[in-house]
Amino acid sequence: MKIVPPHSVGVVVPQTAQFGPIDLQCGVRLPHFEIVYETYGQLNADRTNAVLVCHALSGHHHAAGYHSMDDDKPGWWDVCIGPGKPIDTNRLFVVSLNNLGGCHGSTGPRSTDPSTGDPYGPTFPTVTVKDWVRTQAMLADTLEIPAFAAIIGGSLGGMQAMQWAIDFPDRIRHALLIACASKLSAQNIAFNEIARQAIVTDPEFHGGNYIKAGSNPDVGLRLARMLGHVTYLSDYSMGDRFGRELKSGDIASGHDVEFQVESYLRYQGSTFSKVFDANTYLLMTRALDYFDPARDYGDDLVKALGQATCKFLVVSFSTDWRFAPERSDEIIDALVAARKDVVGANIDAAHGHDSFLLQVPRYLELLSTYLDRVAAECGQ
Amino acid sequence: MKIVPPHSVGVVVPQTAQFGPIDLQCGVRLPHFEIVYETYGQLNADRTNAVLVCHALSGHHHAAGYHSMDDDKPGWWDVCIGPGKPIDTNRLFVVSLNNLGGCHGSTGPRSTDPSTGDPYGPTFPTVTVKDWVRTQAMLADTLEIPAFAAIIGGSLGGMQAMQWAIDFPDRIRHALLIACASKLSAQNIAFNEIARQAIVTDPEFHGGNYIKAGSNPDVGLRLARMLGHVTYLSDYSMGDRFGRELKSGDIASGHDVEFQVESYLRYQGSTFSKVFDANTYLLMTRALDYFDPARDYGDDLVKALGQATCKFLVVSFSTDWRFAPERSDEIIDALVAARKDVVGANIDAAHGHDSFLLQVPRYLELLSTYLDRVAAECGQ
Repeated sequence: MKIVPPHSVGVVVPQTAQFGPIDLQCGVRLPHFEIVYETYGQLNADRTNAVLVCHALSGHHHAAGYHSMDDDKPGWWDVCIGPGKPIDTNRLFVVSLNNLGGCHGSTGPRSTDPSTGDPYGPTFPTVTVKDWVRTQAMLADTLEIPAFAAIIGGSLGGMQAMQWAIDFPDRIRHALLIACASKLSAQNIAFNEIARQAIVTDPEFHGGNYIKAGSNPDVGLRLARMLGHVTYLSDYSMGDRFGRELKSGDIASGHDVEFQVESYLRYQGSTFSKVFDANTYLLMTRALDYFDPARDYGDDLVKALGQATCKFLVVSFSTDWRFAPERSDEIIDALVAARKDVVGANIDAAHGHDSFLLQVPRYLELLSTYLDRVAAECGQ
Repeated sequence: MKIVPPHSVGVVVPQTAQFGPIDLQCGVRLPHFEIVYETYGQLNADRTNAVLVCHALSGHHHAAGYHSMDDDKPGWWDVCIGPGKPIDTNRLFVVSLNNLGGCHGSTGPRSTDPSTGDPYGPTFPTVTVKDWVRTQAMLADTLEIPAFAAIIGGSLGGMQAMQWAIDFPDRIRHALLIACASKLSAQNIAFNEIARQAIVTDPEFHGGNYIKAGSNPDVGLRLARMLGHVTYLSDYSMGDRFGRELKSGDIASGHDVEFQVESYLRYQGSTFSKVFDANTYLLMTRALDYFDPARDYGDDLVKALGQATCKFLVVSFSTDWRFAPERSDEIIDALVAARKDVVGANIDAAHGHDSFLLQVPRYLELLSTYLDRVAAECGQ
């Protein structure tokens, strides 16, 4: 690009922070690990205007801006983060990290296990949302942020914000939970399991040791991505975008028929398999499946959320069938029962679960006005 | 079993009929083919009480009864077909066939191509719903059935009944369309394509020539079945049946965790891969994807259904998200616009698309009373 687009954070440089040790929930001690992160905007003098952005299943630290002037594609939430955007970097200091176990620079299955000299691969320990929140608190300590003005995320990112509110109530003032749930349903787990089975049964998976074997479970990853992708889109938006349009062939004779939607899915699948690690994919879906903050409180979500002292914004999208509006309603109802302040909003949007990443007018306005209050509260 | 259960057609013997040639829609001429079928009940003297049952994607001819006294599992629609059951074999003569291209005895990809001496495999021609209806009419000719009192099917079976009404209006008096649609949506096609990709990318698929290669794409078939299965169940029924129950392991530590739903799906997948042919699976999903009776009538469903002279029963299930009630509503509305007699019923049922196979009281009662009228009309 010749010039940085308006309202963009511009060119950003990822940073790396060192940590360790951490005793993970699974019982494994990780003696040392790295977290890659980006920040946008400026931390104010009293260190009160920080906002933490948590990524979802296939996300990473690069949430906004560009890595260079040759970069055409901005961060995954560039629509939302920047000067004058809902997460306004003129007023807020945004921290966006790649979670432990990821494959975009933070310590994960592709990293070298210092005790063996080989990539961790399948031996990388199970990580949970609670583990992630603790590592994020360690990052906040490194950045000398006593408490976040807000923590925000969509999908699995929203689950992290929820866990923060419960586990570190004095370090978060507003939790913004977008398109998430308090735990996954059997159907959610089923789709994740099919995706995992596609990966682990790919002969090129080699029990997770594909790097050592010099291969990659491309086919399995492609299938997993195709499946995930369909669950993030709405029936309506797929019909609107693709309908039954053909890319090629003749339906009457059945020769060389390829529907547009088939072509699109295969493209989505193959680009993903080149950039995402299979062991990370398994790890991320398991973190999703095991997330259940109420479990530590006798399966009582009201009691769990009762630990929070922050305020909440809970947003759902009408056509999201991955995490339907009813899932957000459960959270809202539990927060009300726990006597917390919550703004609950169901947004009319066509694009299913993916809507949380898109330019949906009422959604972005709501985030904007809510975060305006957050910024005003810290004098910004 | 020691004795045949009450209201069962009892032990049934499949029969085979020879046909040929047929010029398929794709342009290929099949010089000869076989159809395996079963019949239950008795054809009346004036040959007016015959009911054709059409199977869905993974179905076959064995819709009711048992193949022997050692057989514990009856036909796929035994809940619906038998003496005193909704499709009452005391009054109606039921014909149930395995469609061309199937893998349960009728000519299909596993059959020997007489011109090569090898199984057809991937060279078996594309077959469409219109082709199937023509072969079914040929079977009716062989059985000397001038017209069916009713033709009934669920899912892809319902699509066959719809095509009969349009293509052979004088050979069908009632069309019973259960849990189907007038054509597939982009989302439907997407799920079918993921299933197909799972099969064709399985290294043991060998381009469809797995029989010759002495292998079988078990892994791909398992994935395809797991995926299909999840789309046939409702979110509610999966939650009700499995919830987040564990089969093994400890979520808190993430050790050896296996959810009940994962175990169930893997079981469903592996039993299916042993009994269903991969090339047939591809063929069946393509027949589903290409089905679009309105296409022959300028994409005008009203005009297409206007060809029918029969009466219609159109049934949908509330939690079916594979073919949602809205899809049946489209059919009902088009039939009304085409000035046809139609009973439309949305049935409150918990089990999603699979409900059409299950013992749902209002559904079975409705079928029963509708078919009582059908039987009475032919003096039975």
